[in-house]
Amino acid sequence: MPETRLRLRLHFGPASMFGPGRADLLEAIAEHGSISAAGRKTGMSYRRAWSLVEALNSGFKTPLVDSSRGGSAGGGARLTETGIAVLAHFRNLEAILAKAGAQDIEALQSLAVDMHDGK
Amino acid sequence: MPETRLRLRLHFGPASMFGPGRADLLEAIAEHGSISAAGRKTGMSYRRAWSLVEALNSGFKTPLVDSSRGGSAGGGARLTETGIAVLAHFRNLEAILAKAGAQDIEALQSLAVDMHDGK
Repeated sequence: MPETRLRLRLHFGPASMFGPGRADLLEAIAEHGSISAAGRKTGMSYRRAWSLVEALNSGFKTPLVDSSRGGSAGGGARLTETGIAVLAHFRNLEAILAKAGAQDIEALQSLAVDMHDGK
Repeated sequence: MPETRLRLRLHFGPASMFGPGRADLLEAIAEHGSISAAGRKTGMSYRRAWSLVEALNSGFKTPLVDSSRGGSAGGGARLTETGIAVLAHFRNLEAILAKAGAQDIEALQSLAVDMHDGK
């Protein structure tokens, strides 16, 4: 059985987008309470994690991540109410797709090359 | 109103993927009956369109595009039965998402920065 991953990405106008990498980062921030720890958890550099948080915060009307309790020591970040809502809506869309789209996904999977047996 | 585009991408194992660009190319091949015309229609170079067709054909158990009627003159390509099926399943997944996910998409849209009024 090949593993099929669905990647869902939303573009809001030219500058703002939200996809699986950003969702995983937000989830890790919620779990670990720290942007640097979340970056490590998701395999991103410290710089990359911060730059994504800045992009996320400027792409929505209100910030998604509150890092005001943090600072150079690197501790203290949490999702805002908006951040929690954005993450939940995105995960919901992924779940809708996996459930309502199961037949189409299976059909595509059966047509795709199965990497496990080389055919 | 910001324009929200959903991009859905499926990964079948490490080497094979299908997304909106490939779907648009297949659709244009079906419409124009030629890979080079389809490339022009979708804003791709001739080389890029052919390279995507090769990737598509090797990513599925049977080819998606039959270009045997073509050749150096550049005419004659059509979708195979598999190509028609893959395109239809992908478009179906997009439609499922747009319909069943409408509420989540609207909610995300209302939280995102509206590029049209700068806020």
